[in-house]
Amino acid sequence: MTTLRRARPDDSAAIWSLLREVFRAGETYAVDPRISRDAALSYWVSHAREAYVAEINAEIVGTYYIKTNQAGGGAHICNCGYVVSAAVRGQGIATEMCLHSQAVALDLGYRAMQFNLVLASNGGAVRLWERLGFERVGTIPEAFAHPKRGFVDAFVMHKRLEASV
Amino acid sequence: MTTLRRARPDDSAAIWSLLREVFRAGETYAVDPRISRDAALSYWVSHAREAYVAEINAEIVGTYYIKTNQAGGGAHICNCGYVVSAAVRGQGIATEMCLHSQAVALDLGYRAMQFNLVLASNGGAVRLWERLGFERVGTIPEAFAHPKRGFVDAFVMHKRLEASV
Repeated sequence: MTTLRRARPDDSAAIWSLLREVFRAGETYAVDPRISRDAALSYWVSHAREAYVAEINAEIVGTYYIKTNQAGGGAHICNCGYVVSAAVRGQGIATEMCLHSQAVALDLGYRAMQFNLVLASNGGAVRLWERLGFERVGTIPEAFAHPKRGFVDAFVMHKRLEASV
Repeated sequence: MTTLRRARPDDSAAIWSLLREVFRAGETYAVDPRISRDAALSYWVSHAREAYVAEINAEIVGTYYIKTNQAGGGAHICNCGYVVSAAVRGQGIATEMCLHSQAVALDLGYRAMQFNLVLASNGGAVRLWERLGFERVGTIPEAFAHPKRGFVDAFVMHKRLEASV
């Protein structure tokens, strides 16, 4: 059973452990791979509107944030980021977090959710978001310098949120 | 004759005067229309990689910034924003600033320029960017709550930069 709850200050070590693995690899997030612990936690938690963790047997195995994607006239669309521990990948944790984040987004009054940079090389993520109702609304050519594949395209993905989710 | 030069600290009053008009209207930039002077200057100048002003007869009539659009693997694409005084609109100042910014971007090592949120309701801007070689690479539905037109779509626009510009 996965439990989803708001992140607390004493989760920082576990969250950083998850983020470090993904950020250091530099293959999915537009984050400097050499980012410091404090800067990573600031980006993920402090600068988010809310941050959550996913626990299995009281162990943190995933985390996500929800942010307002643009200010002013764009503030009705949120953005989320998700990270799952490599040890539990493929068990549906990302799906659970994404569904949870959509419900949270509706509670917070957002009308839509947007991912600004989903790498075409990250086929698993693209397929997952599409299965969860997101559409590719844009394709940015050579948007990302992948450490192994060179320049790869990225999709802008978007989903209108409905109260029935 | 328009002169383009780097913004200086003593340009702040003139830059804020230009930004205030556009930000308060809330019809083009994803910025809170009630943004303070300090926050607007921070967004435009302090958080930019570089900021420029356009002068005619020693009067500042336009300003633009250049920023890195995404960190890490996305850091080879820049983002710019441009504001022209209503008094001199239609005289090609935005075109001059955009061409200038493309040259600056190449000097800074960027490979492409991206606008993340060009409102479909801002037809003049869309046509200008297209004339200058930008392509619509995405369309975000109902991306912006326009104070007069309600929810309007926005385009993601992109141009690969070539040394021949």
